[in-house]
Amino acid sequence: MVMAAFARRKEQRLARADGSRKGSVDARAAAVVELLNGQARFCTASSCAGRVLLAQLLAADANRYEVQKKNCSWLMVTHEMCIKDDVMTALEKATGDIVFKFEPFVLHVLCEELQDAQLLHSVAINSGFRNSGITVGRRGKIMMAVRSTHCLEVPLSHMGKLMVSEEYIEFLIHTANQKMAENMRRIDRFYNCLQLALKTAVSANNSPSEEREKNHCVYVHRRKRKTIQKHGVCTSPKDHNKELEHEDDPKSNVDIFGEIMV
Amino acid sequence: MVMAAFARRKEQRLARADGSRKGSVDARAAAVVELLNGQARFCTASSCAGRVLLAQLLAADANRYEVQKKNCSWLMVTHEMCIKDDVMTALEKATGDIVFKFEPFVLHVLCEELQDAQLLHSVAINSGFRNSGITVGRRGKIMMAVRSTHCLEVPLSHMGKLMVSEEYIEFLIHTANQKMAENMRRIDRFYNCLQLALKTAVSANNSPSEEREKNHCVYVHRRKRKTIQKHGVCTSPKDHNKELEHEDDPKSNVDIFGEIMV
Repeated sequence: MVMAAFARRKEQRLARADGSRKGSVDARAAAVVELLNGQARFCTASSCAGRVLLAQLLAADANRYEVQKKNCSWLMVTHEMCIKDDVMTALEKATGDIVFKFEPFVLHVLCEELQDAQLLHSVAINSGFRNSGITVGRRGKIMMAVRSTHCLEVPLSHMGKLMVSEEYIEFLIHTANQKMAENMRRIDRFYNCLQLALKTAVSANNSPSEEREKNHCVYVHRRKRKTIQKHGVCTSPKDHNKELEHEDDPKSNVDIFGEIMV
Repeated sequence: MVMAAFARRKEQRLARADGSRKGSVDARAAAVVELLNGQARFCTASSCAGRVLLAQLLAADANRYEVQKKNCSWLMVTHEMCIKDDVMTALEKATGDIVFKFEPFVLHVLCEELQDAQLLHSVAINSGFRNSGITVGRRGKIMMAVRSTHCLEVPLSHMGKLMVSEEYIEFLIHTANQKMAENMRRIDRFYNCLQLALKTAVSANNSPSEEREKNHCVYVHRRKRKTIQKHGVCTSPKDHNKELEHEDDPKSNVDIFGEIMV
């Protein structure tokens, strides 16, 4: 009965028209989206493969210094490597406050049960998406968000006046493209880890129910070792610690990732 | 029995020495930390009130263009408003690749039960911390992370060479301070919303158990209206939508926040 409700909701969602500015799933996110929607217990809600953009803040909100969807227009956006000419051409049109941004892969997935979200969360963390997290709604809807700490947000011009040199913009584009390349590697890693995790989870689910719990743990440990040794795509918890940024310098002595590594 | 286990774990955690670079809880996060630790079902694991910093990437990692704790040193850090002289003095010492960053409030809280994490998540989202999420570990440990989308990450120099003007640095500091001020307002909002939510949750828990579920829903709806009308500290779901950034332009037509608003 619960399963039927999820399946119905999923069908309705996937039948709706795409409401994003772009109107379609990004090519680089498509494989992940397809893999997830092919599973009865997952339904993707939104995704962006990662992008570099120039946002122009509208006058009324320029003082808030925050890029907001409804209060800004995009002068340029690309989901591929960023090209200098496109940035320079877009900057010529600029009149207000312009911000150059790199935004990494983001994915929202509705999950049938909490353990499905846990599996996905584990895959996300192991693939480098350290700001991922689960949301449980009032009526029990479970949403898993895949997010990265990866970011770049650089004010370029103020009230129409460009504040940086062309040489700096070139350097910035190079930096953004480096981040985009790393972002793409992480998406591939996520896809590979997910594929492996789903396979192993299915075989665990096919075994007698009294052994599932045991198998699940074995799967988790085995998967980590396997993916590191054979596939070379997932980071180990140890490697993972090397990637810690802001949240790795907590004002308390807790090893967060020791806690949450599943 | 479960409760006793959480209480024991909490006692052990809070007794440990602070392992952060700074070695103590930030003043601006202290009230929230204290409020949470005063509740039997919450235990804070780490926090940072928000900061502006200059990070120097070490040579070996400069190519990765990512600020990482173990691969960078800090030339300057402040949890208050940023002062130009401090930035300029720090930049004189710079030899490698320098990145100017604003990092917002971040808080990790261990929760006894999933519904405690849901309550906290709802408070966080309503206070403007839109990247917040829950983590459920393999052994059932529940961690709630309060995170914001607020960010600023600006490369300033490459291989010791400053790539921007002093005028631009001034503008950047002004922008960072605007973000810091907004960050402080959000922390205050989070504290006020949390205090109200905890009070209301306690009175709901004191009512007969068969009425709890009903009361909880009433609380949620009432709280939203109350906080908007009387306290003026929480954003309504509608206001909230105005703040959407990256994730508000999903490549699918789902109103995520319609889903997760609790």
